[in-house]
Amino acid sequence: MNPELFLQLDRVIHEKGRLAIMAALAASPELSFTELRDTLGMTDGNLTSHIRTLQEEGFVSVAKSFQNNRPLTSCSLTKTGRKAFGEYIALLEQIVRQNKP
Amino acid sequence: MNPELFLQLDRVIHEKGRLAIMAALAASPELSFTELRDTLGMTDGNLTSHIRTLQEEGFVSVAKSFQNNRPLTSCSLTKTGRKAFGEYIALLEQIVRQNKP
Repeated sequence: MNPELFLQLDRVIHEKGRLAIMAALAASPELSFTELRDTLGMTDGNLTSHIRTLQEEGFVSVAKSFQNNRPLTSCSLTKTGRKAFGEYIALLEQIVRQNKP
Repeated sequence: MNPELFLQLDRVIHEKGRLAIMAALAASPELSFTELRDTLGMTDGNLTSHIRTLQEEGFVSVAKSFQNNRPLTSCSLTKTGRKAFGEYIALLEQIVRQNKP
């Protein structure tokens, strides 16, 4: 086994909640805060906190606009975020390959 | 995407350090504390703390004996631990499959 693989897993993406957010955003050009929250079954507070961490890391960008006179918050992966998520998944793939029974 | 997959990831195994320990133990019938520590490059304190958590979860068993008059601590996966690790890896495999570009 190669212990380096585990050390290389991105600490920010590895957290289960953030991993789910990154995976949801990787599958869409963008998602509204409400869509993300409902898809993942998270509380507002939990999602807000994870999105802030992902923003600070440069992985997610957040845009505020209006739709039918109501505020709309849209989240999407940045180029950096998409690259980091791709690398994270590639590492998981190696971990799976080395650890399959 | 299926958000259930992420929720199902075992919280105890998912932590990077413990994941590395479980993977190392899965590859051997047993490893001494020293072998684990040196393979994974962990501090004594860090490894002790993770092993205790894995013991409490019933995933790892620890046996103390003597070898050449020196105390020897051996760690191994329990049957429960081996099953939980197998399920964890199977979930990772599904996550990888759903998220490959």
